[in-house]
Amino acid sequence: MLLEARSSADVVRRQLRCAHDDHAATAGHLRAQPPSHVHTLARGSSGCAAAFLSYLLAARHGVPAGALQLSALTLHDAPLQVRGSLAVAISQSGQSPDLVTSMQRLSARGASTLALVNQMESPLAQACLWRADLRAGPELSVAATKSFVASLVASALLVSHWRMDAAMLKALDALPHQLDTTVADHEIDATVRALAPVEHLLVIGRGFGLPLAQEAALKLKEACGMHAQALSGAEAMHGPVSLAGRGRTALVFATGGPELPGLIAFADHLRRLGTNVVLAAPPQIRERTMTLTPADMPELDAVPAIRSFYEVVAALATARGFDADQPPHLRKVTLTL
Amino acid sequence: MLLEARSSADVVRRQLRCAHDDHAATAGHLRAQPPSHVHTLARGSSGCAAAFLSYLLAARHGVPAGALQLSALTLHDAPLQVRGSLAVAISQSGQSPDLVTSMQRLSARGASTLALVNQMESPLAQACLWRADLRAGPELSVAATKSFVASLVASALLVSHWRMDAAMLKALDALPHQLDTTVADHEIDATVRALAPVEHLLVIGRGFGLPLAQEAALKLKEACGMHAQALSGAEAMHGPVSLAGRGRTALVFATGGPELPGLIAFADHLRRLGTNVVLAAPPQIRERTMTLTPADMPELDAVPAIRSFYEVVAALATARGFDADQPPHLRKVTLTL
Repeated sequence: MLLEARSSADVVRRQLRCAHDDHAATAGHLRAQPPSHVHTLARGSSGCAAAFLSYLLAARHGVPAGALQLSALTLHDAPLQVRGSLAVAISQSGQSPDLVTSMQRLSARGASTLALVNQMESPLAQACLWRADLRAGPELSVAATKSFVASLVASALLVSHWRMDAAMLKALDALPHQLDTTVADHEIDATVRALAPVEHLLVIGRGFGLPLAQEAALKLKEACGMHAQALSGAEAMHGPVSLAGRGRTALVFATGGPELPGLIAFADHLRRLGTNVVLAAPPQIRERTMTLTPADMPELDAVPAIRSFYEVVAALATARGFDADQPPHLRKVTLTL
Repeated sequence: MLLEARSSADVVRRQLRCAHDDHAATAGHLRAQPPSHVHTLARGSSGCAAAFLSYLLAARHGVPAGALQLSALTLHDAPLQVRGSLAVAISQSGQSPDLVTSMQRLSARGASTLALVNQMESPLAQACLWRADLRAGPELSVAATKSFVASLVASALLVSHWRMDAAMLKALDALPHQLDTTVADHEIDATVRALAPVEHLLVIGRGFGLPLAQEAALKLKEACGMHAQALSGAEAMHGPVSLAGRGRTALVFATGGPELPGLIAFADHLRRLGTNVVLAAPPQIRERTMTLTPADMPELDAVPAIRSFYEVVAALATARGFDADQPPHLRKVTLTL
């Protein structure tokens, strides 16, 4: 897992060299016939990446986007009215029947379909009108890392080309360098020390940083056997904050942009309740446990952040006696309906 | 909390006596100008009810529906293209500024707006084009129960009238009787015994039953201090199942319809991995720990199911030394932005 996570910068370099044409072509179609809505279809790590794509589309581009309920299509064969909308599936393997069946049904009902996929020969890629190759290379570890990073970058490439967003395209070019900025050993040690004895915790993010918290929580489950649940700082206030207090732990990802002040205030609130707070934050935040290297725009902060956090996950797995490459009860390709 | 939960049948009787006109009027507008999409806005228990509304709309009515990212509107003031769509906010108090601000912004951008709310004088009700009273009466316990049941029923009333669904309207009429069917004491005891020592667990549902699992997990957090996380059975296979195994516990809500066989199979899978499985299921499932009284159609199974589960939550809170009416760190009205 760690070797693959560490190849993220190379993966993104390859994407930025080869993938612009795919996304520019799709973007041309989307500008010619703008969809009213974007439905995302994905599970696991790809589901977290799909949440990132949705947030980018909604908050930066103004196109409403969100996850579609897969079982409504697979179990109920719902007569969904999707004419004029775009359905985007994200998948490493492109094999799960729920994604393939759903995209076929959405296509039959008039949606345009796009696959962001790491296996261009997969049934999912074949089922879609348009496809873009994640170019993450073979991912051998069961817990996906570099293909998650590639999915975030593919999402940002698609949105950048769609809105002809020169600033975001420029910020994407700076990512490989930021992905090579390693997190300091003493910060990994401090984070691992704080998290190693923990059996369950809240992982907090917000806005562009919520998908980062979701992916981090998933990896803490898969690779470290910790029951981590991701929530937005605002949603946590409506109930889950009752879990805070002495003897409890929370991991807060404070990414940049208008989300930052609220996330720092929420971390303070948790700390005042007696919670053991692990704060991942940019260099200017003094109370941080772990430094997040900012991207050139806060919308992309999640990309270098998750790369750094994979270092923590690997060290934490070892500290807790787990093999990060062999999570219990999981196979590389999961087939669900 | 328990007294209010036990008044659910009366609340629903009152709704069925008084609320048809509100929903029929809104439904008339919606049939005259069918929205292309429904955006839901809600947090906490109301967020779980909103997930139920979205699933009903998508799976039974074919209208795509899902949660809108509130922070995209509040923090980023995103230029969301929502003309021709319907935004539905669900709230007990109708006071949280994020809901009020978001509905105002969506309305200004051309969406129709509807509030399902328990306080008709609240700023949220005032900010919306249409409103329907949940008629749950004053809810004094911090952890909402009867207003959650009322939100499910209001959602089903809206969808029934919109699609002029006589079968669903008839099934709704049977709910008060089903809500008065009490769960047997020995089943409450068995469930409490199994869950009392547990600090964290997965709560599994699917389709129409996923919002039930979400609300159950929220109440286990708020009232019992347990870190419960709700997931669909399919999503759990893509990573979180690595938390299964000896010493772990899962609570599975197996509601009726096409979801049932997969949920029973998933419970079996968890049990084979050594997990301690608490199964809430209809009477015909022999391995159940707790019996779920079915509604007259599986789409509505969540309504009597959550009423029964509130009995478990109250008993479990007491067994764990918590006061179910006073969750730590929460107030009755939560204001977030």
